[in-house]
Amino acid sequence: MELVLIDGAWQASAHSSTFRVQNPRTGEFLEAEFPVSTWADCDRALDAAVAAAAVLRGVDGERIALFLEAFAAGIEADADAIVALAHLETGLPEKPRLRDVELPRTTTQLRQAAAAAREGSWMQAVIDTKLNIRSCFAPMGPVVVFGPNNFPFAFNGVSGGDLAAAIATGCPVIAKAHPLHAGTSRLLAQCAVSALAEAGLPAATVQMLYNMAPADGLRLVSDARVGATAFTGSRAAGLALKEAADKAGKPIYLELSSLNPIVYLPGALKERGTELVTETADSGLAASGQFCTSPNLLFLLEGVESEAFVQGLVAEYAKRPVAPLLSASGLHHMGRSVESLVAAGATSLTGGEPVQGSVAFCFQNTVLRVSGREFCAGSAELQREAFGNATMIVMCRDVAEMNEALSGLEGNLTAAIYSSKAGADDALYGATAEILRQRCGRLLNDKMPTGVALSPAMNHGGPYPSTGHAGFTAVGIPRSLQRFGALQCYDGVRPERLPKVLQDVAPHERMWRQIDGAWVRG
Amino acid sequence: MELVLIDGAWQASAHSSTFRVQNPRTGEFLEAEFPVSTWADCDRALDAAVAAAAVLRGVDGERIALFLEAFAAGIEADADAIVALAHLETGLPEKPRLRDVELPRTTTQLRQAAAAAREGSWMQAVIDTKLNIRSCFAPMGPVVVFGPNNFPFAFNGVSGGDLAAAIATGCPVIAKAHPLHAGTSRLLAQCAVSALAEAGLPAATVQMLYNMAPADGLRLVSDARVGATAFTGSRAAGLALKEAADKAGKPIYLELSSLNPIVYLPGALKERGTELVTETADSGLAASGQFCTSPNLLFLLEGVESEAFVQGLVAEYAKRPVAPLLSASGLHHMGRSVESLVAAGATSLTGGEPVQGSVAFCFQNTVLRVSGREFCAGSAELQREAFGNATMIVMCRDVAEMNEALSGLEGNLTAAIYSSKAGADDALYGATAEILRQRCGRLLNDKMPTGVALSPAMNHGGPYPSTGHAGFTAVGIPRSLQRFGALQCYDGVRPERLPKVLQDVAPHERMWRQIDGAWVRG
Repeated sequence: MELVLIDGAWQASAHSSTFRVQNPRTGEFLEAEFPVSTWADCDRALDAAVAAAAVLRGVDGERIALFLEAFAAGIEADADAIVALAHLETGLPEKPRLRDVELPRTTTQLRQAAAAAREGSWMQAVIDTKLNIRSCFAPMGPVVVFGPNNFPFAFNGVSGGDLAAAIATGCPVIAKAHPLHAGTSRLLAQCAVSALAEAGLPAATVQMLYNMAPADGLRLVSDARVGATAFTGSRAAGLALKEAADKAGKPIYLELSSLNPIVYLPGALKERGTELVTETADSGLAASGQFCTSPNLLFLLEGVESEAFVQGLVAEYAKRPVAPLLSASGLHHMGRSVESLVAAGATSLTGGEPVQGSVAFCFQNTVLRVSGREFCAGSAELQREAFGNATMIVMCRDVAEMNEALSGLEGNLTAAIYSSKAGADDALYGATAEILRQRCGRLLNDKMPTGVALSPAMNHGGPYPSTGHAGFTAVGIPRSLQRFGALQCYDGVRPERLPKVLQDVAPHERMWRQIDGAWVRG
Repeated sequence: MELVLIDGAWQASAHSSTFRVQNPRTGEFLEAEFPVSTWADCDRALDAAVAAAAVLRGVDGERIALFLEAFAAGIEADADAIVALAHLETGLPEKPRLRDVELPRTTTQLRQAAAAAREGSWMQAVIDTKLNIRSCFAPMGPVVVFGPNNFPFAFNGVSGGDLAAAIATGCPVIAKAHPLHAGTSRLLAQCAVSALAEAGLPAATVQMLYNMAPADGLRLVSDARVGATAFTGSRAAGLALKEAADKAGKPIYLELSSLNPIVYLPGALKERGTELVTETADSGLAASGQFCTSPNLLFLLEGVESEAFVQGLVAEYAKRPVAPLLSASGLHHMGRSVESLVAAGATSLTGGEPVQGSVAFCFQNTVLRVSGREFCAGSAELQREAFGNATMIVMCRDVAEMNEALSGLEGNLTAAIYSSKAGADDALYGATAEILRQRCGRLLNDKMPTGVALSPAMNHGGPYPSTGHAGFTAVGIPRSLQRFGALQCYDGVRPERLPKVLQDVAPHERMWRQIDGAWVRG
């Protein structure tokens, strides 16, 4: 039986076909079959979501928080099974990655979202007592979440940051699980179902489909019943969904590709070149380079220390064990992307090909190199993302050439600068940082971008085309909730008819509100 | 000489043709000629704006505030000339409208924006001291502002709310003045030029073109040099610009058409029917109905009081003097729209045609009527906006039919409910308010929507297609500044390299920042 989660029950899917998941370490297909939904499944889920959204508008933050906390606890209780299956489906190590890093990150996100729902400050209530005009953010309606392939828990459509943010604002979620970890998604969805019952929320608050034809995805994000969409994944798929959603006037938040440029200034290399090689390889090869914030592009200035860094990095990449990519298709794309980068002028210093004779989806750890001059000349082709364990060095003749190359960068999620701790690079820092600042969402110093801390100050967003709008972030609670809020104003509305959050007395003491220009609590 | 304001100077325009403005009260063409810019003008303005944006990023809020205040003072000093010319170009009364209402509104907006720039709280600095992650909003870059035809000062691209908000965030503005008040726009732009010099801001901080071919407008909003666009005007033009900007990944904020439904519950009509007739006519005929928040659609329940209200409103519309519309084209469109509404099932109770034999662009004050049943059946055609002095009554058989009709409404800027002050309508209010709440940006009680107060709690926005995104507002400082901010995060960045707003000690005592979860000042 091919079942999907619609309106609180595992219902027979109106599916066009089925699929199975391949184990990336063996190439073998796992046993379970999952349905590719037709529009009929989407349509039923949308109707149920609309009904759930109407109920959720009247539910207070406390009850939503209880659900999110119960969900987190349920995931922890079932952690053994979830981690084991995710390992089979994704090839990612059970420890530390899945069990000790990603699973706790996921439950922390759910609990942070619970705290935000309980506090209610995300609504940004603004009260003008003199004119009796009051406004706050309120849920936009059903949110469709497309999860990516690379985080089976923390960015999963049915358990990740987008779900947590949408639910915390009171928006029901229709999750489109990623087909590469369909079984994991089912286990997580089961935890959600139990937690919904425990908290007494509408059963259709969380629904899940495993897969659908691209055309149905376009129809889904532009359906009149949808409030907004959050998508994490490839640029091609994301931009196709964006076009459909934009035409229908539906907000869509995208988290797409990013090269995450790193600049190594000469003083830093002189001070701690060997250390930086290790740090770069640790970050660039983490999860086989399949992070949205993986450092893909390293900028250096010609010189002895830079050449030593390159040699060190090449040696490190060559000697480190190769871990499998997430899918056969990912392996195929890596090959195509590296070929394309080489065709555009890059040289492969190590790796550059699939691991021969391996049953696992393994690509050799790869370091490419291109000159700053070539990068400036062929900028677009050389900014193709190779999603995996490949990193490209851009060796620049001088600072002018490097800054020109950086000026040609598209929008990125992150950019980092390593500089001397003794001040030797201070004269260079300013101009380079200013260029990068306008081309990224998060600027780092002396730090790799792969750690995306769960901080209210985090920005996991950036200029187009790393996302669809530079004003929003996908990580960082409560700011990530902002994406799912519609501004609602009450003008001269009688006191007893106002939502609690806008009444003279706040619903509870923890909520921050802006009253007559001052932020006050309680 | 056909001059446009590029890079601080009135330069010869690379224009394709010229135009003159018609006096709406006489039909006569005024003397001055204005250029229709070609792409060459846009291109030069964009280059200058990019350079200005780079300088503005380093300018502090105090200096920006000084400019906005000097601009306001300059407009006040030249008020006589500005008001006189606006009256000739728009036909709007010098007093009270232009002189006593719109001009003070405009200078108040500029001064509120100045205060916001000075305070800096709009940047929403969030500081996580433990992890040393810090983020805030920063200017997106050059903003293109398309002003509408109906507010020659307060929404003018070169002096209105969008300009004030964009400048306050540090974004230079390329204003596309509305050709119906080109001369007024020139006078306002001159005030801007003087104020820029006085405050020492880059000359290209405010630039202005009078008109351009539609294709050049599409190219402008999607140009790589643009940060964002703000547009107020017709749905057709706005959605064409939206499509172009969306494709280029450029944020665009739209303020489009809105019917602003008003519900009159029976108890209110019983209590104060006559008063409500006057209030409705005052609002519906203000500026000949050419407000974006003009009440176009009045919902009533069948009954004696409702019929009395209709009779009263018809008599009032018939007897009130007719004021000219803003243009010959506006007059033409009114005729077409009213015809189309009649073809869709509405009946004209009074008016319905241009005033015969008038040299002025006058349309008869018009009241239309349609049944709730017909409105439900033909909802889309009957939601065509007649931008001017026409108002349509939707007479519903009962509450169920009215709520069904309201459920079919597209997104609107506002919606209002009049109800008994003694509580007679309380049983009806809830369900109707809930339906309207999801279909408007601002919900009013016992109040017409045409007053859009300059309050921080105001929302002049709403669900699509009244705007392009329900999370943003065009009026209400500092919230309206949010549209032009890109989120920028600093992760592990050394203290002396942080922007002042994110350093441990705030740049001044008035700025609100969120530090480790608490909003604090100073």
